Amino acid sequence: MKEFKELDEKITHFDAITGLADWDQKVMAPKKGRNEFAKAVGTLRTEAFKLAVSEEMGNLLKEFNSESAREKLDEVTAAQVRERQEFYERSKRIPADMFKEYSVLTAQANDAWEHAREHNDFPHFAPYLEKIVDFKRKFAEIYGYEKHPYDAMLNEFEPGLTVEKLDPIFSKLRDTSVRLLEKIKQSTYQTPAEIFNQKFGVEKQKEFNRFILPIIGFDLDAGRLDETVHPFAQSINSGDVRITTRYLEDNVRSALFGTIHEAGHGIYEQNIDSRFDGTVLAGGTSFGIHESQSRFLENMVGRSREFWKYFYPKLVEFFPEQLAGVSEVEFYRAVNTVEPSFIRIEADELTYNLHIMVRYEIEKALMAGELEVHELPAVWNKKMEEYLGIVPAFDSEGVLQDVHWSFGGIGYFPSYSLGNLYAAQILNTLKNEVPGYEAEIAKGNFAPVNDWLKNRIHQYGSLYKPDELIVRVTREELNANYLADYLNAKYTEIYKL
Amino acid sequence: MKEFKELDEKITHFDAITGLADWDQKVMAPKKGRNEFAKAVGTLRTEAFKLAVSEEMGNLLKEFNSESAREKLDEVTAAQVRERQEFYERSKRIPADMFKEYSVLTAQANDAWEHAREHNDFPHFAPYLEKIVDFKRKFAEIYGYEKHPYDAMLNEFEPGLTVEKLDPIFSKLRDTSVRLLEKIKQSTYQTPAEIFNQKFGVEKQKEFNRFILPIIGFDLDAGRLDETVHPFAQSINSGDVRITTRYLEDNVRSALFGTIHEAGHGIYEQNIDSRFDGTVLAGGTSFGIHESQSRFLENMVGRSREFWKYFYPKLVEFFPEQLAGVSEVEFYRAVNTVEPSFIRIEADELTYNLHIMVRYEIEKALMAGELEVHELPAVWNKKMEEYLGIVPAFDSEGVLQDVHWSFGGIGYFPSYSLGNLYAAQILNTLKNEVPGYEAEIAKGNFAPVNDWLKNRIHQYGSLYKPDELIVRVTREELNANYLADYLNAKYTEIYKL
Repeated sequence: MKEFKELDEKITHFDAITGLADWDQKVMAPKKGRNEFAKAVGTLRTEAFKLAVSEEMGNLLKEFNSESAREKLDEVTAAQVRERQEFYERSKRIPADMFKEYSVLTAQANDAWEHAREHNDFPHFAPYLEKIVDFKRKFAEIYGYEKHPYDAMLNEFEPGLTVEKLDPIFSKLRDTSVRLLEKIKQSTYQTPAEIFNQKFGVEKQKEFNRFILPIIGFDLDAGRLDETVHPFAQSINSGDVRITTRYLEDNVRSALFGTIHEAGHGIYEQNIDSRFDGTVLAGGTSFGIHESQSRFLENMVGRSREFWKYFYPKLVEFFPEQLAGVSEVEFYRAVNTVEPSFIRIEADELTYNLHIMVRYEIEKALMAGELEVHELPAVWNKKMEEYLGIVPAFDSEGVLQDVHWSFGGIGYFPSYSLGNLYAAQILNTLKNEVPGYEAEIAKGNFAPVNDWLKNRIHQYGSLYKPDELIVRVTREELNANYLADYLNAKYTEIYKL
Repeated sequence: MKEFKELDEKITHFDAITGLADWDQKVMAPKKGRNEFAKAVGTLRTEAFKLAVSEEMGNLLKEFNSESAREKLDEVTAAQVRERQEFYERSKRIPADMFKEYSVLTAQANDAWEHAREHNDFPHFAPYLEKIVDFKRKFAEIYGYEKHPYDAMLNEFEPGLTVEKLDPIFSKLRDTSVRLLEKIKQSTYQTPAEIFNQKFGVEKQKEFNRFILPIIGFDLDAGRLDETVHPFAQSINSGDVRITTRYLEDNVRSALFGTIHEAGHGIYEQNIDSRFDGTVLAGGTSFGIHESQSRFLENMVGRSREFWKYFYPKLVEFFPEQLAGVSEVEFYRAVNTVEPSFIRIEADELTYNLHIMVRYEIEKALMAGELEVHELPAVWNKKMEEYLGIVPAFDSEGVLQDVHWSFGGIGYFPSYSLGNLYAAQILNTLKNEVPGYEAEIAKGNFAPVNDWLKNRIHQYGSLYKPDELIVRVTREELNANYLADYLNAKYTEIYKL
């Protein structure tokens, strides 16, 4: 037991420092050192991986193999064993040669994807993606699944999730969103989105972003805010969580909602109980739950009336010229503008999920062998037209836009919509359990919401699996009802449907 | 051979990432995460140490043990083996229990020293220092030495150095400095140092520091400049060298010469041949040689007439009010003001070495058992009076001022004066081999100097030991003649002696 805990801690420490190095490479490292830097980080990552799949780990895990041995474990240790066991078994299953070949392929595929996107040349990327899909189909057979090969992919990002569970949920979300979008398009009301077609000084934006962070609950003594082209959150430990954003003079929304989004990830990590420090449990429990916390803060809170009741007068102080004559409710409507667009990461709260549906359906069909890579551009465009009513003129704005497939991240995209679904379901419980929280936010008091989230979700880190956690918090399994209701209610009001 | 190179690379990579983590802790890490962060860094550092003293390393080194095996090695591999062998043997000699006890002691001693300095309470620190000295005396016996136990300490920081070699060199330096200081005190000329008794805006200082760095040869695409209370340089690899400085509104010299000093360390690391990347040779060869490069840039270049011929007009553009009516030569004399003071790190170029002589003589006597810890304050004050003509009123301004002894760094202080000695000896060779370099600096062209330093010193990293390197560069062994001549000439001119 002592040896297991020590090994778990050692791997966790290696991972923490690797995470720091990853952050540093993106945020701090000067360009001329990056090549050699990457080699050093690679060495560290490899060592951590070797420890996690070592004979020593295998032997230690064996001791907990019997039902009776497991029953003796306290809840925390049992969860540590569970996490290490899962990783050990999954990693051990892929033969070393196969894994190496796959790693080389994804490195090459990433370069090919970059080239293809830049030159709008899907056929250049297609052979790499075909090989990746072949590998993924093989991996699915090796990992095993009950009904659908895509289940093995989903499981990597959202443990316990299956196509069987997800299909009806995503169908409902898709149909609701398509119907709602149709109504919005037919509405004669237009939000005053043109207020964002102005320049907002970057220095003032920086000040405003730093101003809001501590108020919404991100502790700057236990974290940092820096700048990168692609914003992200990285936790070193619960007292050191680093988020990034990017400032665009032409697009004040980019930094604003980017910062709030990453702060959602960051607050989750900051609130994890320090008893999990130095263990495999010291991190959010899944991609979907993590995304639920960022989406919750970005959309359910950050795009709410009560949020801007408090913050809009402050924003006007920072940008008196740009916002002259714009009322708080107009601003609220403007930040909730719905407008079909080609690029997922720029999509609004409603159409975002439709971008995910396109990818989900394609990945599922690819894994099932019902679709081949060369058919992707056509299928992509067809689905875009069907769900969003627009067709990209170039593959670079369509099937080539995202990096995920190039690194083999099939099964990753659903996490984003899962985040939205979890968030709405959690919001519903919050409304019941913390009545009046909106009035507190309108006063700038985020403690009732954050305390509740910490108490019900954040503190547990990876102690509970996502499917268990969502039932503990909301007393029901994941479903699409709450997000559908939330979207319908929100946009019916905004667009006066 | 292949295994040895791989192990060397692995340890070097671990050390590089540990260095990054150390830098991050001082420069970036938010305070609440530092405790857990330190544990993770500790794990990594321990692993690197274990690898360096592992059975695997021992066995690999054995293969190169015979004369014939070594002769077959190329120069670089031979140096790698030499460095790893030295570390392996030194580390193996101290029994693990003893090392652990010593580590605990130095951690406690550091706290005790902080307390003692803050409360001007030497007796509070004395018992810890006594134990440290006891340990050091034992270590010296274990490491072994030929003539003086202090040799074993010196060897850790400046391989090959002994009391026998150093005593005459330091005696000459001390006597020259004392005599010169006496003359300066009697001189009726006063440098216009009062121009520094003004406020220099911090933002402007920052701009000026960033402005000079690329000109003097520090590549900001292969490094960074950040801020810390105690400036330092940290190399991650030759393409990623990070230096820090600190800006004080009341003291424009602090950041200015601090930045130039650290840039000297940084340029050395940036210029190391990239063929040493990922090997134990990828770093400066000793503390003394490293310090020679920082002192050379700070003093021989940064406090020279030619330097300010180029930079003073620029500085006036940044601070027109503060420098109104001050001529370039007056400014040059002002930055070379000699003034005995209590604190080593604030000392001028001349009296600095006298601060080191006080410490050198005390350390030597402590190691020889000729002096005991409780006698230190009295001896310190006596030597201060003898060499500098001033006596500190408090131990906090005297024997308690430096951190070094609290972490067991006996033998470290001489490196600083060694740096000055090496620097003057190197300067003499530079003058012979690159005639007219001063005129180039006066035009803002630092390439002749930096190319020469790179070619003769920097590129080699740790390939040559310091005693070998200085002979290769200057064709003679380390001696005090050049620094004595340099100081005499410089201050005779400035103080019109």
